[in-house]
Amino acid sequence: MSVAAQMLDTYPKDLGGVDRDKLAACIEACIECAQACTACADACLAEDMVAELTTCIRTCADCADVCDGTGRVLSRHTGYDANLTRAVLEACAAACKACGDECATHAEMHEHCRVCAESCRRCESACRDLIAALG
Amino acid sequence: MSVAAQMLDTYPKDLGGVDRDKLAACIEACIECAQACTACADACLAEDMVAELTTCIRTCADCADVCDGTGRVLSRHTGYDANLTRAVLEACAAACKACGDECATHAEMHEHCRVCAESCRRCESACRDLIAALG
Amino acid sequence: MSVAAQMLDTYPKDLGGVDRDKLAACIEACIECAQACTACADACLAEDMVAELTTCIRTCADCADVCDGTGRVLSRHTGYDANLTRAVLEACAAACKACGDECATHAEMHEHCRVCAESCRRCESACRDLIAALG
Amino acid sequence: MSVAAQMLDTYPKDLGGVDRDKLAACIEACIECAQACTACADACLAEDMVAELTTCIRTCADCADVCDGTGRVLSRHTGYDANLTRAVLEACAAACKACGDECATHAEMHEHCRVCAESCRRCESACRDLIAALG
Repeated sequence: MSVAAQMLDTYPKDLGGVDRDKLAACIEACIECAQACTACADACLAEDMVAELTTCIRTCADCADVCDGTGRVLSRHTGYDANLTRAVLEACAAACKACGDECATHAEMHEHCRVCAESCRRCESACRDLIAALG
Repeated sequence: MSVAAQMLDTYPKDLGGVDRDKLAACIEACIECAQACTACADACLAEDMVAELTTCIRTCADCADVCDGTGRVLSRHTGYDANLTRAVLEACAAACKACGDECATHAEMHEHCRVCAESCRRCESACRDLIAALG
Repeated sequence: MSVAAQMLDTYPKDLGGVDRDKLAACIEACIECAQACTACADACLAEDMVAELTTCIRTCADCADVCDGTGRVLSRHTGYDANLTRAVLEACAAACKACGDECATHAEMHEHCRVCAESCRRCESACRDLIAALG
Repeated sequence: MSVAAQMLDTYPKDLGGVDRDKLAACIEACIECAQACTACADACLAEDMVAELTTCIRTCADCADVCDGTGRVLSRHTGYDANLTRAVLEACAAACKACGDECATHAEMHEHCRVCAESCRRCESACRDLIAALG
């Protein structure tokens, strides 16, 4: 079991009606995607054709920041606020969609963009699954 | 002129049709509010009645994280994406509304909650002004 | 292979003499520990004895922030600066030591502190291994 | 009075022997520098000569992350740990030194690097002043 799932299991109060598996999956996807995007922005910077990758670098930087904040908000359960959770998840899904689309256009040429795009797709999907589960 | 405004003025390409004053004001409000919320969560932790402030601490922690990420996204202009900007601003306005409301209920008893609530109100307002200006 | 390790493998330039396994392990430990600490601070907040856990909550919040920044710095390789990497790793090891020690004192009573302490120990150890490998 | 200074003044417990002015100045310098560095990395990305600015972009990204974390750690006073504070300040001074030096080499050509370098110098200086004041 991942540490994120263990932390959910050891939370001392009731987690409410949340789908624990979807929540753990989304937290894990957010922290994985944040790291992948930070690394992909840096890998793009190291490419000889960096001048053609500036939108990719920016989108990766944004996605890293939004995923990072989302992973933190989802890791807290005390004083839960469904409206805030939903708004944060919507922003995260939008960031992952934008970054996944952008990285996908470079995926055949740059392996780091392929790995990052896959991570963005997983995270976008995990966010949308959790939004749906919130009702 | 603030450093955030100077950085906008020295950006080497066109900033598009953005309202520069509203953008600078929103960036400044985000970084001020992120700091205020981090400090307010810690000040609540130091109160003898901390057990009654747990929702406030959590809401402050979330608001700090969301404002932090929003200030970062707004500080970037290369490869601008209006959809992502709007989604991030909506999440930030929601976080500031939640935290401003929560801190306001303790503002008469705790000065740090009063200062933090005012910072949240300014940031929420700056986010909504910028959303309106995005058209 | 983890996404962090895949991102290292797909970096387009030479990574220098770095020990790739130790670097991947340290990045993974940082992002895992950051999440565990954010969740542990929140779990402490939900305990009835929260008033006795305020130092733990603060130490967890600090450790989350330092691990988060360290994971980001370690995910970048372009324009590598050994002095900065070492200073950041030293701060991260100090944060993980402090948080691991604090959480360990509550580990028998609170399962989330036990899980978090173990994550802090792993991260401190990974930071020290990487510092040693930097030479 | 800045919001950061107001938050220090409204902290409900004793702040210990800390120099309150130096602490407020350092918090303000950290959050200002983090924003400047995020914006400078993006402005470099928008320069036609971006391929010659990749080290600058990376150093700015690191400095933003380290200043951000340092501003957060300094905003907390509950369960204060001098060793951790010192290690974090040392890392922040190192990041600001590296970024200030790098941006200074482009300051005559790029105004955003000049503004950013000045912000890094102020933050490095504020960190060193606070380290000295910690004793």
